[in-house]
Amino acid sequence: MPGFLSNLLQILRERRGSDMLFLCRHLLSERGEASQTVLAERIIKAYMEMNAADRLKFFEMLARDFGPDPAAISRAAAEYEKNPSAETLAPLFAAVEPPRQELIRRINTASHGTETLVTMRGHLLELAGSKGTNFAALDADLRHLFKSWFNRGFLRLERISWKTPAHVLEKLIHYEAVHEINGWPDLRRRLAADRRCFAFFHPALDEEPIIFIEIALSNQLVGELEPLLDIQAPVLATEKANTAIFYSINNCLAGLRAIPFGNFLIKQVVVELAAELPDVKNYATLSPLPRFARALKDDRNADGFTRERLSRLLADYAEDLTAATRERDPVEAFQDLLQAPLANRKVLTAPLERLALAYLTEARDGGRLYDPVASFHLANGARLERINAFGNLRPYGLEASFGLTVNYRYLPDEVEENHEQFVRNGQIRLGGGLARDFREVSAAWQNPQRAKRA
Amino acid sequence: MPGFLSNLLQILRERRGSDMLFLCRHLLSERGEASQTVLAERIIKAYMEMNAADRLKFFEMLARDFGPDPAAISRAAAEYEKNPSAETLAPLFAAVEPPRQELIRRINTASHGTETLVTMRGHLLELAGSKGTNFAALDADLRHLFKSWFNRGFLRLERISWKTPAHVLEKLIHYEAVHEINGWPDLRRRLAADRRCFAFFHPALDEEPIIFIEIALSNQLVGELEPLLDIQAPVLATEKANTAIFYSINNCLAGLRAIPFGNFLIKQVVVELAAELPDVKNYATLSPLPRFARALKDDRNADGFTRERLSRLLADYAEDLTAATRERDPVEAFQDLLQAPLANRKVLTAPLERLALAYLTEARDGGRLYDPVASFHLANGARLERINAFGNLRPYGLEASFGLTVNYRYLPDEVEENHEQFVRNGQIRLGGGLARDFREVSAAWQNPQRAKRA
Amino acid sequence: MPGFLSNLLQILRERRGSDMLFLCRHLLSERGEASQTVLAERIIKAYMEMNAADRLKFFEMLARDFGPDPAAISRAAAEYEKNPSAETLAPLFAAVEPPRQELIRRINTASHGTETLVTMRGHLLELAGSKGTNFAALDADLRHLFKSWFNRGFLRLERISWKTPAHVLEKLIHYEAVHEINGWPDLRRRLAADRRCFAFFHPALDEEPIIFIEIALSNQLVGELEPLLDIQAPVLATEKANTAIFYSINNCLAGLRAIPFGNFLIKQVVVELAAELPDVKNYATLSPLPRFARALKDDRNADGFTRERLSRLLADYAEDLTAATRERDPVEAFQDLLQAPLANRKVLTAPLERLALAYLTEARDGGRLYDPVASFHLANGARLERINAFGNLRPYGLEASFGLTVNYRYLPDEVEENHEQFVRNGQIRLGGGLARDFREVSAAWQNPQRAKRA
Amino acid sequence: MPGFLSNLLQILRERRGSDMLFLCRHLLSERGEASQTVLAERIIKAYMEMNAADRLKFFEMLARDFGPDPAAISRAAAEYEKNPSAETLAPLFAAVEPPRQELIRRINTASHGTETLVTMRGHLLELAGSKGTNFAALDADLRHLFKSWFNRGFLRLERISWKTPAHVLEKLIHYEAVHEINGWPDLRRRLAADRRCFAFFHPALDEEPIIFIEIALSNQLVGELEPLLDIQAPVLATEKANTAIFYSINNCLAGLRAIPFGNFLIKQVVVELAAELPDVKNYATLSPLPRFARALKDDRNADGFTRERLSRLLADYAEDLTAATRERDPVEAFQDLLQAPLANRKVLTAPLERLALAYLTEARDGGRLYDPVASFHLANGARLERINAFGNLRPYGLEASFGLTVNYRYLPDEVEENHEQFVRNGQIRLGGGLARDFREVSAAWQNPQRAKRA
Repeated sequence: MPGFLSNLLQILRERRGSDMLFLCRHLLSERGEASQTVLAERIIKAYMEMNAADRLKFFEMLARDFGPDPAAISRAAAEYEKNPSAETLAPLFAAVEPPRQELIRRINTASHGTETLVTMRGHLLELAGSKGTNFAALDADLRHLFKSWFNRGFLRLERISWKTPAHVLEKLIHYEAVHEINGWPDLRRRLAADRRCFAFFHPALDEEPIIFIEIALSNQLVGELEPLLDIQAPVLATEKANTAIFYSINNCLAGLRAIPFGNFLIKQVVVELAAELPDVKNYATLSPLPRFARALKDDRNADGFTRERLSRLLADYAEDLTAATRERDPVEAFQDLLQAPLANRKVLTAPLERLALAYLTEARDGGRLYDPVASFHLANGARLERINAFGNLRPYGLEASFGLTVNYRYLPDEVEENHEQFVRNGQIRLGGGLARDFREVSAAWQNPQRAKRA
Repeated sequence: MPGFLSNLLQILRERRGSDMLFLCRHLLSERGEASQTVLAERIIKAYMEMNAADRLKFFEMLARDFGPDPAAISRAAAEYEKNPSAETLAPLFAAVEPPRQELIRRINTASHGTETLVTMRGHLLELAGSKGTNFAALDADLRHLFKSWFNRGFLRLERISWKTPAHVLEKLIHYEAVHEINGWPDLRRRLAADRRCFAFFHPALDEEPIIFIEIALSNQLVGELEPLLDIQAPVLATEKANTAIFYSINNCLAGLRAIPFGNFLIKQVVVELAAELPDVKNYATLSPLPRFARALKDDRNADGFTRERLSRLLADYAEDLTAATRERDPVEAFQDLLQAPLANRKVLTAPLERLALAYLTEARDGGRLYDPVASFHLANGARLERINAFGNLRPYGLEASFGLTVNYRYLPDEVEENHEQFVRNGQIRLGGGLARDFREVSAAWQNPQRAKRA
Repeated sequence: MPGFLSNLLQILRERRGSDMLFLCRHLLSERGEASQTVLAERIIKAYMEMNAADRLKFFEMLARDFGPDPAAISRAAAEYEKNPSAETLAPLFAAVEPPRQELIRRINTASHGTETLVTMRGHLLELAGSKGTNFAALDADLRHLFKSWFNRGFLRLERISWKTPAHVLEKLIHYEAVHEINGWPDLRRRLAADRRCFAFFHPALDEEPIIFIEIALSNQLVGELEPLLDIQAPVLATEKANTAIFYSINNCLAGLRAIPFGNFLIKQVVVELAAELPDVKNYATLSPLPRFARALKDDRNADGFTRERLSRLLADYAEDLTAATRERDPVEAFQDLLQAPLANRKVLTAPLERLALAYLTEARDGGRLYDPVASFHLANGARLERINAFGNLRPYGLEASFGLTVNYRYLPDEVEENHEQFVRNGQIRLGGGLARDFREVSAAWQNPQRAKRA
Repeated sequence: MPGFLSNLLQILRERRGSDMLFLCRHLLSERGEASQTVLAERIIKAYMEMNAADRLKFFEMLARDFGPDPAAISRAAAEYEKNPSAETLAPLFAAVEPPRQELIRRINTASHGTETLVTMRGHLLELAGSKGTNFAALDADLRHLFKSWFNRGFLRLERISWKTPAHVLEKLIHYEAVHEINGWPDLRRRLAADRRCFAFFHPALDEEPIIFIEIALSNQLVGELEPLLDIQAPVLATEKANTAIFYSINNCLAGLRAIPFGNFLIKQVVVELAAELPDVKNYATLSPLPRFARALKDDRNADGFTRERLSRLLADYAEDLTAATRERDPVEAFQDLLQAPLANRKVLTAPLERLALAYLTEARDGGRLYDPVASFHLANGARLERINAFGNLRPYGLEASFGLTVNYRYLPDEVEENHEQFVRNGQIRLGGGLARDFREVSAAWQNPQRAKRA
């Protein structure tokens, strides 16, 4: 469009240094909307060309120059105090909402707007940890809008299969962070006839999965990871399956951290599976204990696990091991034992599982459960069904989870109640096998002196 | 799911009278989200079964019980006053945002959520005029969220053609409110090879057009409606077309009133047409003057048109008509004349077009242009290209627009500048033919005494 | 492609009069295929521009100039006689196959080839009745190839619904020849929730249904047409349906006459319905008796119905009617009676139904059943379930079928056996209610003297 | 369907040994078609369960028991002789057409019919070479029908890209036989932005490509293979491309051998590319000389290349090489030289290219060109543009083509004429650079004594 935007472009040329400030102000100040898309596109283009240093400046500008006006807030608050009503609330609401929320909304009207804003928040969260930065308010604004834009009603569930276009499948390989996908033959096995995979897509990020879940069909509850990851494993005939194991769930986009999808995904996937496979009656995860090893070493966590507690538990549950571990740091001793030959390892089974049970149910960090995966599934209404020592002996499994895995089980009939009990009273529903262990473990926890095995 | 939700259901049974209050509170209070979808679905179902009286009560409840807490606002405002910072702003923002915004967001997570909420706002706007109701704050909340959800980035433009599924086409017949579609043969002609039709769709309202535009291809600027609506009109060969006439634009859903789409639709459609039909160089509307007749009778509009002004203009521009109109109400006399035989009508052409020009450019209502269609297109950056006496002699055209039509023209190169001039200075860009008339008309308007024709 | 085909075009210009002969010979003689598509496209274009007289000449040319060479056949046959083997058969087969088969195959390689050839056969069949023409061999060639090209394996079954694109639905209105569709509201009712419609499509005729069937879901066997055609009829809830009535089946393209699809369509539709609606257990047609009236007047049909036989049957079954019909032509008398008030008509029920039963089961024409609809469904394995006097009182129903309708019923378990019995022995499976009537009717037929009712 | 087919099944049980003969006769003898699909499905199932020995018996049965009846042919031929007319031709045609053609057509009506028949012909062609078998007539029947079913009008061209479903892409990896695809990263590079890939699909073999072509966009004619197969090669910006190199074309299904698609594929692909990339003006292949090495060793080919001729050419064109090759088998000597360091190899360039030119243009085998790839492209109307020594030094390139590659070039304007000249007169159109060489080479060929270089 020659001539189009010529005034604007001239102005821009004159003040190169402050392009983005100018563009953002211009976009925001417009009473009408004729130039909105053009301006938003320029901002997007400029952003995508920025390096890390530019982005830092840009975020600082957003944080500094597009926050609310304290004077306006004071005035509006005073008016509201005088006469609290819908009429005085509206201006107060307008004064309190940071102008950058409207700025973000307008950037979102352009092509690739949502994509850029999600990328932007990804960058922001990377910086968030750096010292000297405080982008909490800016992040809150992005998160506030993303929660609205990425609400369940706008997401599209799609089955992912070997018939899915390759450029989407490639993204699964890229985004899988729980159990790495080693190339296309591995992916192909994960999409075979005894597997299911589902993803949520958002209309503004059309061919980009935002979260996906991998499921193995089986004829029993599975506690061990290896058979699920074995590319050569025989394919189970679908009609023999009675159980669906959710063994990997991945958020794809860093910029959508803390926008909740997983809960909805699991529940809708249960509905889809029930419709397709009426003989599948059991839905359970095969999950890691991602902070187990950390908890055992976490000295600051007064409420948590300590070496002392660990050594006492080791002593209680595996007296024959005490020789081996005596006078050593119990965590180290423990990890050494995990490397031992299978026959030797077996004796660790019960201690490990009870220790993990104690960790999952009792260890807390600032009031919340120490284990985020447990938190997630229990808050979703799952029960803690089974704990499996030596379920994942891959290096990352040994390192974080001491080789353990957990099955959280979703029973549609109890999901609602479990959820309520958990979020209201912190009460955890346990699978049959764990209930008895729990009484013992819990007593030991509450009163270490009495923890001796009968 | 037998057994599922049994506690909840029992409670519900006990307090039938306040179901909705209970459900909404429950949905909102949940810390977790396990029951969110179920609760939202129950609210949606209950809402869809309500009659008008129920809905009134429901809206009153939302307005009364889900607004912000004044005490909390006071506290948060006081904290902010003491120490204005991101840390004190966040709680103030949270306190000021009415809880019903979050409630609405959660309702939207269920299947059919968006659809129901749009329907709900439609109902609300119907009631809004009724005396004794004040739902401005509730409507503001809905509008605030809808603007975010229905932003341009989430809309999908689709061409509507005779190959479109019948259940979508049927909706065009239903929603067309500018120039009624008289059944399927009429619709078929409007989708013939020399026509185009485009609609915006939203992913959460999948097969429901939310706005659509009808376009006729032609080989000249068209001021008369009849050839466009004539089912028997010959179909123009596409390669002869150099002009696209936008002759009807319709918002489909009452619940989306004041959520702006039209602006984006027109601009994207220009892009689509330019790509498909490179020989089409002119884009113009064929528009009504929907409040022209009303303006002439509007005595309260001090700044507007009056009978006196009308009779003076008639006298000025059509002296030979004064005999006919003398001593009569000039508006009535005028309308009588419109019914006259064509030969007699012709003499009205110049007076009508100048009167319309004055109306479109000078008549204001509370600071804004009196004519909403003019406001819309001029704010979008169009120019006022041509005024056509007798362009629409259908009853609705005679009644509202005195039979006149207007062409607003979109020239991509000047859209940005026109928009700026209009929204900043109220300046209107005129087509070549109108510019000279305008000086005369404007002078007459500013100084009625000098309005005599030279 | 300037320059391309220049030699060819020059030659063409020189011999205008014989374009088609030249083009067809050229297309056929090519050893390679480089110009095949171009030539085929030219033939198609030339054909589509022909008028009826041109077409007649073209068909005469195909019949005359593209048949097999008798001398070549003689030679090849002699060689075969001498030594009957695969080696001598191949040349004989090549000599016997008319070259126009290969010509038709090559025309089919061009874009719109299949479409044009189907249209061509439609034209040919129109001419086929004209005196002086003999296109049987040419038609046999087209039919031979069409049977191969339109075999079941290449057809795609699609459900037609109100969500089908309008340009396809429009074709249903156009092609429905059994029970005319009176515009879009009528069509819409026929696609409502208690109706089903399926069509076969062919990949080379992409958006053109080649045959379609209309089905009404109901809670009983339906013998009367009116409730099915009533636009205002209430829509039955799908869960109440136990019966599917196939009330209209239409071949769309004249050029595909005698290429069998209907049989496959009905059977696949039964499979589709069984999958979608497991509660629907009964599948039956509501069919006309298209040649009933004609049979009654067909004096040449020695084996058929005669006025005498009709009057005797009338006398037998409705003695109280004899006064009315005595001394009149019985067919005319009969048709008069059909116009009588309902009360009077009722007495005709039994005679009509028995007469129809005799017609359907006994009347023959050259060895085949006289009624083509009966032939079709019985050969498909259906049973003759019920005959309904006064089932179709629309003018076309009265005229052809004397107002009667028939239900043919498809019971999946007996289809195979019914088919075998019918095609081998001419044996017809009758529904329970008809079996007793049949013995009586058949006796009367075989031995008119004994036809008196007991 | 309990009870369904019970008679049939009982009969089948009684004569296990001859199932297939019984089923095929049954399928063929049916006058009606009610059981056709069921029978065809049983035949398909039985066939798919056969091992190689079963299949041999089955083919023998088809060859023996479903050929035409010699007596019937004799009778019909005699009738035709007596009175050659359409009326006597039809029965002769019917007698001559082997019943297995109709049998094959009927098998094709079932689900998976086409797929099975194509697989069947693949099996048949595998056996065809075995001694003692003669399935030429059976193969001719299959081929005759396949030519009709797989005619151009029924094929669907589709672009294959990285957005194509993985299960289709996987087939490319499987079927690529010219230049092996080494896993997914290799495939991904072949589908990058500077590549194109197209395939034909058939509606009855829905997700199975039947032929595909791989194309590299470049900014010049490419004679060397390596840059095209290099996974790390930089991706050319599309706007810089002026040439499309067709470097691999693969038929996928053995059962469709000798059913011509390649010709149509290349031509339609040129049309597609011209539409998408107007700046690409040159279309050329990068082809092997698949029988070059064989021709040089083919002593039986009197008309072909011989060691003697080769040694003379070597002597002529590379006198400095004679020392190296003297007294050795020239073919072996030649191949040794190809392994030599680059600097030494260069001297071979001219002799190799001229030898190849002689081979491509002069060497014949039973009247046809010795080189099938040359035959294919020249018959399609391409010109022989360039010969490239050392274009493909991969083992398979060295072995079959002595490392040479050829560019055949498609110039739309000359395709028709080239084709005609080639198929009528065997005349080959040469690219500018080759024309001069050709005179020399041809003279040397015709008159070896005069082949000395000037």
